[in-house]
Amino acid sequence: MPRLVMKFGGTSVADMDRIRNVARHVKREVDAGYDVAVVVSAMAGVTNQLVAWSKEAAPLHDAREYDAVVATGEQVTAGLLAMVLEGMGVNARSWQGWQLPILTDNAHSSARILDVNGAELIKRFDEHKQVAVIAGFQGLHKGTGRVTTLGRGGSDTSAVAIAAAIKAERCDIYTDVDGVYTTDPRVEPKARRLDKIAFEEMLELASLGAKVMQVRSVELGMVQNVRIFVRSSFVKPEDINPRSNSAGTLICDEADIVEQQVVTGIAFSKDEAQISIRRVPDRPGVAAAIFGPLADANINVDMIVQNTSADGATTDLTFTVPSSDYERARITIERAKAAINYERLDGATDVAKVSVIGIGMRSHAGVAAQAFKALSQQKINIRAITTSEIKFSVLIDAAHTDEAVRTLHSLYGLDKN
Amino acid sequence: MPRLVMKFGGTSVADMDRIRNVARHVKREVDAGYDVAVVVSAMAGVTNQLVAWSKEAAPLHDAREYDAVVATGEQVTAGLLAMVLEGMGVNARSWQGWQLPILTDNAHSSARILDVNGAELIKRFDEHKQVAVIAGFQGLHKGTGRVTTLGRGGSDTSAVAIAAAIKAERCDIYTDVDGVYTTDPRVEPKARRLDKIAFEEMLELASLGAKVMQVRSVELGMVQNVRIFVRSSFVKPEDINPRSNSAGTLICDEADIVEQQVVTGIAFSKDEAQISIRRVPDRPGVAAAIFGPLADANINVDMIVQNTSADGATTDLTFTVPSSDYERARITIERAKAAINYERLDGATDVAKVSVIGIGMRSHAGVAAQAFKALSQQKINIRAITTSEIKFSVLIDAAHTDEAVRTLHSLYGLDKN
Repeated sequence: MPRLVMKFGGTSVADMDRIRNVARHVKREVDAGYDVAVVVSAMAGVTNQLVAWSKEAAPLHDAREYDAVVATGEQVTAGLLAMVLEGMGVNARSWQGWQLPILTDNAHSSARILDVNGAELIKRFDEHKQVAVIAGFQGLHKGTGRVTTLGRGGSDTSAVAIAAAIKAERCDIYTDVDGVYTTDPRVEPKARRLDKIAFEEMLELASLGAKVMQVRSVELGMVQNVRIFVRSSFVKPEDINPRSNSAGTLICDEADIVEQQVVTGIAFSKDEAQISIRRVPDRPGVAAAIFGPLADANINVDMIVQNTSADGATTDLTFTVPSSDYERARITIERAKAAINYERLDGATDVAKVSVIGIGMRSHAGVAAQAFKALSQQKINIRAITTSEIKFSVLIDAAHTDEAVRTLHSLYGLDKN
Repeated sequence: MPRLVMKFGGTSVADMDRIRNVARHVKREVDAGYDVAVVVSAMAGVTNQLVAWSKEAAPLHDAREYDAVVATGEQVTAGLLAMVLEGMGVNARSWQGWQLPILTDNAHSSARILDVNGAELIKRFDEHKQVAVIAGFQGLHKGTGRVTTLGRGGSDTSAVAIAAAIKAERCDIYTDVDGVYTTDPRVEPKARRLDKIAFEEMLELASLGAKVMQVRSVELGMVQNVRIFVRSSFVKPEDINPRSNSAGTLICDEADIVEQQVVTGIAFSKDEAQISIRRVPDRPGVAAAIFGPLADANINVDMIVQNTSADGATTDLTFTVPSSDYERARITIERAKAAINYERLDGATDVAKVSVIGIGMRSHAGVAAQAFKALSQQKINIRAITTSEIKFSVLIDAAHTDEAVRTLHSLYGLDKN
């Protein structure tokens, strides 16, 4: 029998009615002939309550205890869903992370999955057609025997890792949106749902702020070659045509995408801040003098632009940080002024980053140049530019974000079906 | 170092303020030189929510899934208390049932503890002075690797079993009352707290409806010879004199009780119903014809009184059942009328059982006779009597319960200090 992983997030299992809806989705796939492993998150609100209690218990709480407390949320959902499935006549049992086990490293609250034992699940598929209902977001550190969690969004990673372990045909991520869009439909109503997107493109979209999936789960899908299907959990199971099964976005290998577009999507982020350091001596070691202290302060630097020196002696250097880190970054740089030896520091928090993503850029020249021209025609000033193999980003005034997104969305023909 | 088990129930850990209060109790004992294992229940209300969800999931839910869901309540409390203790500078870690492990049989939702591994706890006491915070009420079935629960009140049993495993000097049960009383103070304001009570006496009190401790935990304490100290969790830790430590009741071996009283306490139960079967043939097999069908219907019969036959041919037989089972019991007997061959069935639900308990009865004659006389002087009619080695019970009209309790409480000098 082909195998399938189905993952449901917190809003999809928020109460017993929704859990029953999830059970009907599972039964539909079982009836269609799949051996199914379901991965569930905690019921919406439950994790927040557990986190609040932990904070109340001790502001600087032990991460091992925090994980033991927070992991219970997923265990409850797994048990309840197994009960509902059995009530519907579907053979099912729940699995906690330590039971399977899902082995992780020791980095409590942000652990990485090391190994998933799928053998017992496969045995139960084959012998009893038993659905596995697995608590997501959690694992076991073998050395200490303690419960670990993967951090927020970790249930996606659990699902993809389990799909790899049982060699599933696909990993379906049920969520509150029905797929991945060419851009945010709230900004550009003409945004279209993508039928397919390559792992690399999804990675760029995920890390650039499209909130559909966590970066780590997409990465894992790419490495393990697990096809991930993003779809809505709010569609009624009885409204789904089992033969077409088409409402959603498949994240897959680029080789599986026949009609590759040059540009796949436009991402943007308004939580950016820009810092420009003026008249820095253009000498070896200056970048280290700037970014060393920032790294020590645990500040995540994103775009970095350094022009070649005009006068041969000094240059300007611009970088961006999350706007929440802006003040800390300023202070860090000012404290290092003697070592860096710059003239002036300029900053701005009213900036946004807009990014264009597409695997087709690899083989198409001039994609970015079109964008620069279109933006300038709209009188949108570009503060900085960075590029990679399959995307480029521009830093602009935040006030122009929506206009820039719509301009680029139209420019690359993403409006059209 | 001497070792101590401290157990806190649901109302004692109902919110973070109370959990902090519990932590101060623990710290007090650590400071006094004890190696401490703490056993906790779920926060009051949490278990009820988990049970309600389970019932909503499926009326006839899988007990294995139910246990997996419900056991999370205690895991949360254990983690939170460990955090609070660490925040107070006390080295602590939480243990779930499967981690220690606490091994049980496979009777999900009412499992029995088979073995508690105390070696790792003792090692951590000795090497790190680490407090163990253990989720009560739960265990692991080794064969299936699944989480089990011990049923309501099971945390007391967990605590006593752990005390036996680590050879604790004492098992302190912190509860919402400050000990075991000679009778219910709501009925007899002169009721006194007992300083000590023998295991056997406590067993009779517990099974007769004094709600301080579960029967199984007292049984286990008796078999393993674990001294159990029942005390209040609402006393402020700083108000306790570490040298006297006296506010509570010690449940111990009778040999440890120097000044043994003849009567220790008066218990009563108003949830009784009486069924009398008139003119049953006085022949072998008639008791089986009556109690066989009741047992098959899973009805728990308590007192049974059968007089020797007066006419040599027929007799009357009276027994009691919980009042909630009264209707089912009547119907069961009426259905078996042909096999039993009785003349008439009389029933009453307005009856109560009052019991007098005391190990001293073993060596003192006439204790029951005094009671019969005192009750008759109060014009309280006795419907039935049963006796055992260390207690006797009378069945009376429910309306006279309080009066009977007070009469007997005074008769045996329990009012006096």
